[in-house]
Amino acid sequence: MTTTAQIGVTGLAVMGRNLARNFARNGYAVALHNRTAARTHDLVAEFGEEGVFVPTETAKEFVAALERPRRLVVMVKAGDPTDAVIQEFAPLLEPGDMIIDGGNAHFADTRRRERELREQGIHFVGAGVSGGEEGALRGPSIMPGGSEESYAALGPMLEKISAKAEDGAPCVTHVGPDGAGHFVKMVHNGIEYADMQLIAEAYHLLRDVAGYSPAQIADIFRTWNTGRLDSYLIEITAEVLSHVDAATGKPFVDVVQDRAEQKGTGRWTVQIALDLGVPVSGIAEAVFARAVSGHAELREASRELAGPSARPLDDAAAAAFADQVEQALYASKIVSYTQGFQQIAAGSEEYGWDIDLGAVASIWRGGCIIRAAFLDRIRAAYDTRPDLPGLLSDGDFAREIGEAQDDWRAVLVQATRQGVPAPGFSAALAYYDALRSARLPAALTQGQRDFFGAHTYRRVDREGSFHTLWGGDRSEVEA
Amino acid sequence: MTTTAQIGVTGLAVMGRNLARNFARNGYAVALHNRTAARTHDLVAEFGEEGVFVPTETAKEFVAALERPRRLVVMVKAGDPTDAVIQEFAPLLEPGDMIIDGGNAHFADTRRRERELREQGIHFVGAGVSGGEEGALRGPSIMPGGSEESYAALGPMLEKISAKAEDGAPCVTHVGPDGAGHFVKMVHNGIEYADMQLIAEAYHLLRDVAGYSPAQIADIFRTWNTGRLDSYLIEITAEVLSHVDAATGKPFVDVVQDRAEQKGTGRWTVQIALDLGVPVSGIAEAVFARAVSGHAELREASRELAGPSARPLDDAAAAAFADQVEQALYASKIVSYTQGFQQIAAGSEEYGWDIDLGAVASIWRGGCIIRAAFLDRIRAAYDTRPDLPGLLSDGDFAREIGEAQDDWRAVLVQATRQGVPAPGFSAALAYYDALRSARLPAALTQGQRDFFGAHTYRRVDREGSFHTLWGGDRSEVEA
Repeated sequence: MTTTAQIGVTGLAVMGRNLARNFARNGYAVALHNRTAARTHDLVAEFGEEGVFVPTETAKEFVAALERPRRLVVMVKAGDPTDAVIQEFAPLLEPGDMIIDGGNAHFADTRRRERELREQGIHFVGAGVSGGEEGALRGPSIMPGGSEESYAALGPMLEKISAKAEDGAPCVTHVGPDGAGHFVKMVHNGIEYADMQLIAEAYHLLRDVAGYSPAQIADIFRTWNTGRLDSYLIEITAEVLSHVDAATGKPFVDVVQDRAEQKGTGRWTVQIALDLGVPVSGIAEAVFARAVSGHAELREASRELAGPSARPLDDAAAAAFADQVEQALYASKIVSYTQGFQQIAAGSEEYGWDIDLGAVASIWRGGCIIRAAFLDRIRAAYDTRPDLPGLLSDGDFAREIGEAQDDWRAVLVQATRQGVPAPGFSAALAYYDALRSARLPAALTQGQRDFFGAHTYRRVDREGSFHTLWGGDRSEVEA
Repeated sequence: MTTTAQIGVTGLAVMGRNLARNFARNGYAVALHNRTAARTHDLVAEFGEEGVFVPTETAKEFVAALERPRRLVVMVKAGDPTDAVIQEFAPLLEPGDMIIDGGNAHFADTRRRERELREQGIHFVGAGVSGGEEGALRGPSIMPGGSEESYAALGPMLEKISAKAEDGAPCVTHVGPDGAGHFVKMVHNGIEYADMQLIAEAYHLLRDVAGYSPAQIADIFRTWNTGRLDSYLIEITAEVLSHVDAATGKPFVDVVQDRAEQKGTGRWTVQIALDLGVPVSGIAEAVFARAVSGHAELREASRELAGPSARPLDDAAAAAFADQVEQALYASKIVSYTQGFQQIAAGSEEYGWDIDLGAVASIWRGGCIIRAAFLDRIRAAYDTRPDLPGLLSDGDFAREIGEAQDDWRAVLVQATRQGVPAPGFSAALAYYDALRSARLPAALTQGQRDFFGAHTYRRVDREGSFHTLWGGDRSEVEA
């Protein structure tokens, strides 16, 4: 064991392997460890020429191979396996060493682990890593939490291996203490759900209302991708829609079962948003839409429910409608990012993380699934005014969504009349209209709650809490 | 201590006190206990003539006053106080005794407590109690979980003190084992949120689109309350809307702050539904709408966002619109009950509770906040066909919602065009249209997931999981 490695990776499934290679390709000596050593040796045999790898077989060897303070990246399945690895390695580490968890951990677990390890003087860094296998290898977007001290020792390496935005800025920042990184990664995934749902609705409307074929819709998405919707997800949507199934000659999208699956981070995002009191209706509708698609029995039983059939438009009307759908998609996207960033702000407030929202937008500009030109605009909005109450309060976004709203409404009128579900578009518009409303019917809700549960209410014209004696003479008492 | 009590209540705040009085008024001797004895003596002093009360001062005295097997009702704040009371009393009890928790516990806590106490041979009965203070005194809807054995000893008493439906049936049933009762109570509250939100939207549209005054809208609700929407919540809505504020002479609803509050069971319902994979968009939008209403800073900053102003209709159009809103409200209500009962079915399946959905509908017909004529219809639907895939699969509901759908769409077209938020109505319609859809765009979602994450997909024409080599020659491989 003569070589000393600057960083080590344990857990060499595809994400771990690619991250290790990424470090090596960027000039770092990388210690390798895996529960079964065969994987370690396979990596060296196959990719050994890419850089300096230090294969090890035992936990002790692995730890001994690392220069101090040690940087130990854990790439195992989130949950119990992560705790098992920590229990294996922590006793071998010394104060100042770092354990970096690059999995999709729940931020509450990350907070617990960080607290426990801090007592031993070990830095625990929960780092969200987005970009899939390709990103891990060629440059992901990285969202590390943990202490300032750990970022000082780790940040330069992460900056080197991360994706770079178009202006060359690395797609990594010190998000904040303890679970901040995994929290932000969770919201990233929630926003990804919402983006995908909005794209799905746009496709559905272009198909059933405008009457376009998948290939034509692919072309429309390609055009959109040259404008303000320019993004990875729009780009791959065009690829998927233009793909033809070799076995049948049919559009690929027509031979795939329409049952969307999910792995849980979208669901977490909504659950945590509910705890924080942040309305994330766009993400919730996306998670629900996937659930509905999987309810085979209920869908089967519901086929005969009455409704209009979509009647495709004529060519000129279809082209005009496609432009309106672009407006609706863009406006709804502004709303779902407004809600997502609102959730990050609320989490930051709740846990004292002091997250820089502009920096978050900045590191999502490259490497991750939701990378998009749009994020540069969000970065600019928060850089200009870090205390923005919400994205919709930014002058540029407010103007754009204002310009889009007529078409957005027109699209929803068509969807409603023609019976094409657009839960994401309509939840976004309802949110927009609720925020605009001078008075909401929440006053009635408060009145009902006071009536049946004596929950009291506040008045618009006086301080204090009040209760009306509904069962008595209906006079008002101070509560 | 000569009198032996058939039941005891510890925790004599308003709910516990009223429940104790309810038992006494129905002829049961009731042992009383409270952390501070003054409350116990106050109850006897004030209401002692209503029946036989056995006041006690210590836990030992309280337990000694109960006939065996003991029935000990706990009416304290959900959470730690419940555990504290259990820890105080459990050591004093004997096998076969029962602890009944009548608070709003989370069903997961109830499952834990039931398991722990079962080891000591003590029955723990988590019982949802709905109806507020008045219900507790005059007859609530009661949703007890726990063992069959405990229900045999407890059921007759609960049936006596419970509300009675119009056909005389008591509003209580043995919901199922361990946490089943508190789970069903949670979903009851979630449905209550959805009902209240739909009513709020109907009011908002009648006010801003039809141009009616609160007093006129109260009359409309009174009319609705004579038809299929007949329910407690519609009834009290009319009361709240017709109430005039004495201090200002204005409609009461206009002097109440439009910031709706919540206590958490709606949020739990959505969080658990997400875990179970059940789309409860109606409840989620209701919870989110309350959250939006409370975001004062964001609302303030959003006042100037562009949008149409609602232009009130002329008289004839307004009257026609009101009829359409009734259809939209009824159709949306069918959807939210479909979703709520779906969640109960999923919980029953997940935890092996074997819940009788018809019986649940039956015991909600009286005593509770969502009591309504409508529930008798749901009871009938599930009694006719206990394995109904969902309420929308019932012939009568399918016909009614089919007849309502044109007007439902017309209302949403107006709301969309005039800029009045209707998140509950539109989420319900999107769910309805999604269920009706022969093909959903979930196939595109699966294609995207396979593209960026190699998550694989299923085909419509062959068994198995497949992956397309998107980065390669785009051939398909079996996964």
